[in-house]
Amino acid sequence: MIKAYAAQSAGTELQMFEYDPGPLAAHDVEIDIEHCGICHSDLSMLNNEWGITQFPFVPGHEIIGMISAVGAQVRHLQPHQRVGLGWHSNYCLTCSACLSGDHNLCQHAEATIVGRHGGFADKVRANAASVIALPDHIEALSAGPLFCGGITVFNPLLQFNIPPTARVAVIGIGGLGHIALQFLKAWGCHVTAFTSSDHKKTEALELGADEILDTRDPDILKNATNQFDLILSTVNVKLDWNSFIGTLRPKGRLHFVGASLAPLDVAVFPLISAQRSLSGSPVGSPATIKTMLAFAERHQIKPIVEVFRFDQVNEALARLARGNARYRIVLSNQ
Amino acid sequence: MIKAYAAQSAGTELQMFEYDPGPLAAHDVEIDIEHCGICHSDLSMLNNEWGITQFPFVPGHEIIGMISAVGAQVRHLQPHQRVGLGWHSNYCLTCSACLSGDHNLCQHAEATIVGRHGGFADKVRANAASVIALPDHIEALSAGPLFCGGITVFNPLLQFNIPPTARVAVIGIGGLGHIALQFLKAWGCHVTAFTSSDHKKTEALELGADEILDTRDPDILKNATNQFDLILSTVNVKLDWNSFIGTLRPKGRLHFVGASLAPLDVAVFPLISAQRSLSGSPVGSPATIKTMLAFAERHQIKPIVEVFRFDQVNEALARLARGNARYRIVLSNQ
Repeated sequence: MIKAYAAQSAGTELQMFEYDPGPLAAHDVEIDIEHCGICHSDLSMLNNEWGITQFPFVPGHEIIGMISAVGAQVRHLQPHQRVGLGWHSNYCLTCSACLSGDHNLCQHAEATIVGRHGGFADKVRANAASVIALPDHIEALSAGPLFCGGITVFNPLLQFNIPPTARVAVIGIGGLGHIALQFLKAWGCHVTAFTSSDHKKTEALELGADEILDTRDPDILKNATNQFDLILSTVNVKLDWNSFIGTLRPKGRLHFVGASLAPLDVAVFPLISAQRSLSGSPVGSPATIKTMLAFAERHQIKPIVEVFRFDQVNEALARLARGNARYRIVLSNQ
Repeated sequence: MIKAYAAQSAGTELQMFEYDPGPLAAHDVEIDIEHCGICHSDLSMLNNEWGITQFPFVPGHEIIGMISAVGAQVRHLQPHQRVGLGWHSNYCLTCSACLSGDHNLCQHAEATIVGRHGGFADKVRANAASVIALPDHIEALSAGPLFCGGITVFNPLLQFNIPPTARVAVIGIGGLGHIALQFLKAWGCHVTAFTSSDHKKTEALELGADEILDTRDPDILKNATNQFDLILSTVNVKLDWNSFIGTLRPKGRLHFVGASLAPLDVAVFPLISAQRSLSGSPVGSPATIKTMLAFAERHQIKPIVEVFRFDQVNEALARLARGNARYRIVLSNQ
């Protein structure tokens, strides 16, 4: 039996919950969970905001642990190996996306907490292709958030071949944004942090920002024309996107890794006149996660985390819901 | 003196108009105009829809003619050489965009019909950098539209490295779209024409489309999921963009070369989930125009034109305004 924390219905507190995972499938592994980050999408799923949550619901998809068992067909992972598991727990491996290395765009991919039980538990299972070995010199306690928040902001740098000569801005210095600043600094870019929070300014500079722009001042956006090759938006609220597009250089890109449900409502002419793009992307593929981990290890990049015990999960979720996490909360079994 | 056709105020008929261009500037050339295409933006400027038209206004920016004089510093063009001139008549040549070969994104570029007198005339002048020699085996009479309509749809194929393996759709089979179909066919792509016009279907197939999708049937869009790597929109009306985005494959792009003034109003999640992009671009750089002309010459691509005499200019403009041009109108001095 796997011991987990589950919500029985939308928006309720998590309670102890046990389930029988059955025999271990041939291509799956079982992970003894050490730590699990809490992502904002755990909250969205808990509250069934996207209408796809199945109850009882076990959140958790920023998982670090030790392999405890491997299925009969698993060759590349062994028991007692420390690994991570993120948003995806299975891929079809045969569609065009998977065959092209874009497993994160596989339409048949299974999300770790959608129709499956996630990482707020003592164990979790996943297809071995979605489980990535943790490099030796990455701290296990804070590594979980790399597997969802981290890969989500790292992936666009690879996808769009962002060069170290680029000027890049990050909107929202939270769970994703604070990791983005570190990646971009190590990537060699000029880094700008857009924030409306006074107390985050100093920290943003320490994390790697070269400059801070306060989004509460409309003149700042208006004057920042022709500045950025890439803007990464990590927020899930509606902002004045046309103003941000105005800050992009020719061929610049406004890229969404966070999203509000509100439509974008953007003018076309500023896209045409300077060949600008709008785009979005989800998490990254297993290969990209591996590449990210090697980069994070080399540059000593790690999420800043607040640690709670697993039995404090409801307290931790409430803190995240209030917007007080600095910058990511991790539940730990240790 | 240069003899031209000019409107004295917004929306009025063009009348004979003479102006003295003064001494020929050192980096300019003068062109004896043989033919000049009519683009929809000539109409928009004539009606001052963008609020930037200066009167008297001489339209015309799809110009073919013979060099009649070159300025003292001009080295790469000679008198009696046949050339073309498109949307831009001058670039700063020193900004980052120009120095990167992206002259079409130069913020100081001068448009041939904005604050200058255009090609509905017997002569026109332009900075030599914006004037491109016409290859020997391109028909002069129909070549004008390549310099604005043609380059506008050709440029994105280079900018985004569209491979011949791509599936590409074109929205709107008109002045731009009918050239896009020919380029895409020669490029090796699978080509889809989106049109709401029954009588254009046969022609679209002849021009290179592999299939036709009727935009009037909402089920067709709904069923065409996961189809296209690139959609080129050449129309200037608001369509149901979210439905078109739904037809894009992972990493697909909806690219605007035509634009309505209405904002885009698109949902963010379909961009994020499949790493899709929205973008736009204007005409191309001189180097890209040259590349396009070589490609058009090799593949015998040419705009389908209706020819009017220059003194029929008002009749021609009225025909374009009624949406009856098939597919581009060219005024000819011959």
